[in-house]
Amino acid sequence: MTKSLDLYPTRLPEHHAPVRRRDPVVHSRNQHRWNGPLDEVALSHYERDGFLWFEGFFSQESMQPFFEELKEMAQDPEMLKSEQVISDPASGAIRSVFGMHELSERFSKLTRDPRILGMVRQLLGSEVYIHQSRINDKYGFQGSGFDWHSDFETWHAEDGMPRMRAVSASLMLTDNNEFNGPLMLIPGSHHQFVPCVGETPEANWESSLKAQKVGVPDETVLADLGKRGGIQSPKGPAGSLLLFECNVLHASNGNMSPWPRSNLFFVYNSVDNPLGVPYAAKSERPEYLGARRNVKPLEIHDDFPELAGQGVEPLQGHG
Amino acid sequence: MTKSLDLYPTRLPEHHAPVRRRDPVVHSRNQHRWNGPLDEVALSHYERDGFLWFEGFFSQESMQPFFEELKEMAQDPEMLKSEQVISDPASGAIRSVFGMHELSERFSKLTRDPRILGMVRQLLGSEVYIHQSRINDKYGFQGSGFDWHSDFETWHAEDGMPRMRAVSASLMLTDNNEFNGPLMLIPGSHHQFVPCVGETPEANWESSLKAQKVGVPDETVLADLGKRGGIQSPKGPAGSLLLFECNVLHASNGNMSPWPRSNLFFVYNSVDNPLGVPYAAKSERPEYLGARRNVKPLEIHDDFPELAGQGVEPLQGHG
Repeated sequence: MTKSLDLYPTRLPEHHAPVRRRDPVVHSRNQHRWNGPLDEVALSHYERDGFLWFEGFFSQESMQPFFEELKEMAQDPEMLKSEQVISDPASGAIRSVFGMHELSERFSKLTRDPRILGMVRQLLGSEVYIHQSRINDKYGFQGSGFDWHSDFETWHAEDGMPRMRAVSASLMLTDNNEFNGPLMLIPGSHHQFVPCVGETPEANWESSLKAQKVGVPDETVLADLGKRGGIQSPKGPAGSLLLFECNVLHASNGNMSPWPRSNLFFVYNSVDNPLGVPYAAKSERPEYLGARRNVKPLEIHDDFPELAGQGVEPLQGHG
Repeated sequence: MTKSLDLYPTRLPEHHAPVRRRDPVVHSRNQHRWNGPLDEVALSHYERDGFLWFEGFFSQESMQPFFEELKEMAQDPEMLKSEQVISDPASGAIRSVFGMHELSERFSKLTRDPRILGMVRQLLGSEVYIHQSRINDKYGFQGSGFDWHSDFETWHAEDGMPRMRAVSASLMLTDNNEFNGPLMLIPGSHHQFVPCVGETPEANWESSLKAQKVGVPDETVLADLGKRGGIQSPKGPAGSLLLFECNVLHASNGNMSPWPRSNLFFVYNSVDNPLGVPYAAKSERPEYLGARRNVKPLEIHDDFPELAGQGVEPLQGHG
C-alpha cells in the first residue's frame, strides 16, 4: 500500500491558510444526478450547506427498540470493558460506543435501510460501505460537548481516507432540543479544508475520542467561517435524521438539561475511496474506528424480499 | 449583629428535600401592588415564572458606550490586577468584573434609570440599594459556562441575606443568541428553596466565582424542577433586559460561537432586607460581592432635574 498524493495536508508544524475543496460535494455526475431519491432542491441545498435535515424521518416509536438495546448494553459489564466503549471525561458515564452495526443485527439492518442507503449512494455516486458507526450519549446534566472539527480532517490524517467522498447519517434516538447538546454546524464550511497544526501523537485515538487536542482548527479561521456561514443546530423529535458531509465543521455543547441526548452516527464511505496509509499518523487506527477489512458494498435491507421486482416500469425517458 | 432565624438552612452535611419559599415574590402588597410601572399581567407572570424579559428594552446603539468603556478597562493593567476582576478558568480572559457601578459614573447612572428602578421598587415593595453589580464576559469560543444555581442560596449562606427580597437586572451589552452562551432559567423554580450539601470552605469566593463547588443543587432535584418547569433561554439584541428573582435557578453554557457575549448584572436588594451574619460561612465576603457599607437607598437618575414635578395630576381614584 503506497501513500497516494496528499490533496489535503494537515497536522502541520505551523499555521496554513484553508485550501479550497478539490472534490465534488454530490458525486453522482450528469444524468446520474437525477436518478433519485433526492430531488434537485435537496441536492443543491446539500451542495450549498453541507447537510440535509429530515425532521421526524422515522416515527418516534420506532426508535424505542434501539434505545432499549443500548440501555441493555450499558448494563453489560463486558461491554463497558471493551475499548469500543468510550467513557465521559467528566462523569465516567458512557460517551460513545463504536461499531454498533457489528454488535447488533437491529443496527446493521438500519444502516441498510432503503431510504437512507438510496440517498447516500446518490450523494456518493457509487456503492458504499460503513467506515465507522457510533452512538454518542449525553446523560442529563452530564454529557460534555465536542469542540469544532471536520471529521474528514481526522479520517484523512489518521485513517488515510484520500478524498472527500463520505457522508454521515445521524439519527436521533431521543429528542434533540436547544438544551441537551444538539449538533451545531457551520453551513458552507465543507467548501474549505482547514489544515490543523500539530503532529499526531502515538495512539492519539485513545485520548482524542474523549477530548480532541490535535485536529483542532485555528480560531481565527473558525471565526471567519462562522461569521460568513452562521451556525445552525437542527432540532426535532426522536427519529429525525441528519445527513452531513464529511468535511463540514461541527461541534456540540454540553448537556445542561435533565433530558438525555442519544444520537446514532453511521459514516458511509464510497467503495472508490478506500483507506490507504494514514497521511499524518504513524500507525492505523483500530478497525472499529476506520474499517479496512469489512468494506463489502452494503446491500439494501428489504423487509419483503419475496416481492422483489414488483412495480411499474418507468416511462421511456430522454436520457 | 446577631444571627437571625434561619428560614432557609443550606450547606448541610447531608441531602435535604427542597422547602417551600416563605417570602412573597412580589413584595408590594394590596393596593400598592398596582401603583405601577408593571401591570398585573407582568406581575403575575413574574410571580409564576420568576423572571420578566424585555426584548430591546434599550436601543442597541445606546449600549455601545458601555461596551467601549469595558474594553478600555480590559486594557488597563491596574484593573486586571484588582481582585474585583475574575479571569476565565480555561482561557485566562476576563470573565467577570465586580462593582461596575462604583468604578464608573456611566454604570452608576444606569443602576438608577427611572424605568428599571421603578420596576424593581415595585417588585421589592420598598426602597432598594445595590447588593452587587457585575459584568460577565464570554469571548468567542472561549467563555466557560456557569452551572445551575440559585443566587439567593449563596447570598444567604455566604452574605447573611435573610429573606428572598432581591432581584437581578441583567442587561445585554451584546446580542444574546442560541450559540454564545445565553442565560437559561427554570421557570417556577423560585417557589422552592433547594438546600445544598457541603460546608462552605474558607474564602470560598476566591475559587467559587470561577467554578462553583459548594452551593450546587442536587441533580435529582434539579431534574425534577427542570422537567416540571422546562427551561427557557431569553435571546435578543443588545439592549434587552431580564429581571429575575434572586431564587430562580439559572445557568449558562459555554460560548461555542465566534460572537462575544457580554451581560451586565445589577442586583437590587430591599433596604428592609439588610445583610447580617452569614448563615453558613465563617466570614463575610468583600464589599464588592455583598454591600454592607454602601447601602443608601438609590435615587432615580433624572436627565432633566429642572423639570421635576412637571405632569398632569392623576384622576381621583377609589383607593
